[in-house]
Amino acid sequence: MTQSVNHAERRARFAAALAERGVETALITWPVNVRYLTGLASSNAAVLVTASGGAVLATDARYAETARARCPDLEVIEHRDVAGVLLARAAGEVAVEADHMPVAEYRRLSDGHRLIPVSALVEPVRAVKDEAEIAALRLACEITDRAFAAVLERLAPGVTERRIARWLDTAMLELGADRPAFDTIVASGPNGAIAHHAPTDREIRAGDLVTMDFGACCDGYHADMTRTVAVGRPAGWQRDLYDLVRRAQRAGCDAVRPGATVHEVDAAARAVITEAGHGEHFHHGLGHGVGLEIHELPYLGPGKPGKLEPRVPITVEPGVYLPGRGGVRIEDTLVTRDDGPELLTLTTKDLLIL
Amino acid sequence: MTQSVNHAERRARFAAALAERGVETALITWPVNVRYLTGLASSNAAVLVTASGGAVLATDARYAETARARCPDLEVIEHRDVAGVLLARAAGEVAVEADHMPVAEYRRLSDGHRLIPVSALVEPVRAVKDEAEIAALRLACEITDRAFAAVLERLAPGVTERRIARWLDTAMLELGADRPAFDTIVASGPNGAIAHHAPTDREIRAGDLVTMDFGACCDGYHADMTRTVAVGRPAGWQRDLYDLVRRAQRAGCDAVRPGATVHEVDAAARAVITEAGHGEHFHHGLGHGVGLEIHELPYLGPGKPGKLEPRVPITVEPGVYLPGRGGVRIEDTLVTRDDGPELLTLTTKDLLIL
Repeated sequence: MTQSVNHAERRARFAAALAERGVETALITWPVNVRYLTGLASSNAAVLVTASGGAVLATDARYAETARARCPDLEVIEHRDVAGVLLARAAGEVAVEADHMPVAEYRRLSDGHRLIPVSALVEPVRAVKDEAEIAALRLACEITDRAFAAVLERLAPGVTERRIARWLDTAMLELGADRPAFDTIVASGPNGAIAHHAPTDREIRAGDLVTMDFGACCDGYHADMTRTVAVGRPAGWQRDLYDLVRRAQRAGCDAVRPGATVHEVDAAARAVITEAGHGEHFHHGLGHGVGLEIHELPYLGPGKPGKLEPRVPITVEPGVYLPGRGGVRIEDTLVTRDDGPELLTLTTKDLLIL
Repeated sequence: MTQSVNHAERRARFAAALAERGVETALITWPVNVRYLTGLASSNAAVLVTASGGAVLATDARYAETARARCPDLEVIEHRDVAGVLLARAAGEVAVEADHMPVAEYRRLSDGHRLIPVSALVEPVRAVKDEAEIAALRLACEITDRAFAAVLERLAPGVTERRIARWLDTAMLELGADRPAFDTIVASGPNGAIAHHAPTDREIRAGDLVTMDFGACCDGYHADMTRTVAVGRPAGWQRDLYDLVRRAQRAGCDAVRPGATVHEVDAAARAVITEAGHGEHFHHGLGHGVGLEIHELPYLGPGKPGKLEPRVPITVEPGVYLPGRGGVRIEDTLVTRDDGPELLTLTTKDLLIL
């Protein structure tokens, strides 16, 4: 029952946000946002929410029984055209999700209704988590840590990137994850220079740095962690690169506090890398929110808008990528708290030499 | 190199389809469609294709090196705003993907460009597979079959739905799948009445029917199979229900041939169930195409348009769901061939009694 109480509270926060933006009624169709507001995970559902706090859920026959069981405090309409059936209930203008609703669907639904495309309707509300969400993330991060520890014992020269990725995925499932939070990245040797490298049949060799970026998904919540390890004694440049990224990661984590702008958190880590002459080799943002999606608000990067609030889970993940040679990335998932960030991924950041 | 030849052939087929529809230039931004046309799997890429066969790929720094390696015959532009940078190259009207492009992105890009939202640009081309795609699906289905066989040996009273789902997922990974093709469904006893049931902690008991709907994803291609098994000696109504669904599934498979309308394939299976008085308990379409997505064209259902062509992989998956009691679904993945369908999922459809 705690479950449906949480969702009612989220809808209340969302209704208040609508009122603040002067939106009377909103039709939410993006599956992740429907799940956030109702608890129903489905590929075809929508929820109509009014600024005064009313809400109606629609889904098709495949999910209707689940919806009635999981959302006892909501009216559930069973219909295949979930958006259409809810719009028939609405009077006046209805805000729709501009970032998600495809043009064709927008045009179809506009026939007979006044739709107002609005960006970031639910996402800013989702950025600040309740403790039930943080608990799910904490569990997902714990499984991530434990899977890493289990796989480290087996990582040795001769094993392929692809095999390591499967070991990580399998270990997370066996430890209780619902699924991997995203396609696991294992990048060894020169492949480490590719930030989003898909695992190949390349065999690990002594002298490689190996970057593993992965996470568990538990109850819909996505963990995200990256560690780079050395196989055999690392060369001087590898140690230096690792130390640099580690210092940048620490500077980023130290800058995480409620009230900080996302720009200044990014800048804190980026300055360390830029001062070392590697600014151009760190070509992505410092991090991103995690929750029901693996990438969600807030985004930490140069020129990004916004400030951190308390209870916002984010990643801090600087990387330096040297084309043709390799790279290092170190990433944690942590939560903003008034008394300093709560670290959710607890694996050591000392350079592990296997 | 076969790889890039296949993608060049796909682009040629797509360019011909554009020409036939009178579309001069198309901007493809949906990740699955970009992957289909170029071989690049990425969360941020776009490809501009002209009816005369020209193509330019854009992606950001995270994927640029992979793009250059995988798409040696394509010009690759490295830019974060992949759609914007490609539109700057286009003259005149540009077709965009109406089914996928969000309203906000459409409005942003419309500034300075004449965009024409067009539905189903690439999807109809994707429906007919080349033999490399069918080989990937065949492998995915083989892994699916083998995972099922491995898990059947462990399935017994006292095991939870959730655990069976994890076993299936883990077995598929260990057998070489990149990932499960979708969230594995395990529905036991009365939960079998819920077509898209998410696995719970319910323990299997003697007397249950257990429906497992799952599949492996290999090299981006999605297998899909469902089997319902009996735990302990099945009751008369369970045997009858199973036999009914099995007959419907056979009728559906027998109707699969190039030239058949998707409506008549659905009707062939549905008639069996309707004649038995269970029409209202089969409340979804008979099946769908599979490929780079788990659900794609063609959709087999009442009133759906279109005919089957050769080399179209589809599922045939009738089900009967009795609220509060349970259900049966039997599903195969098969490919239309001129000389009769090629069955890709080979697990027996005899009622297995564990």
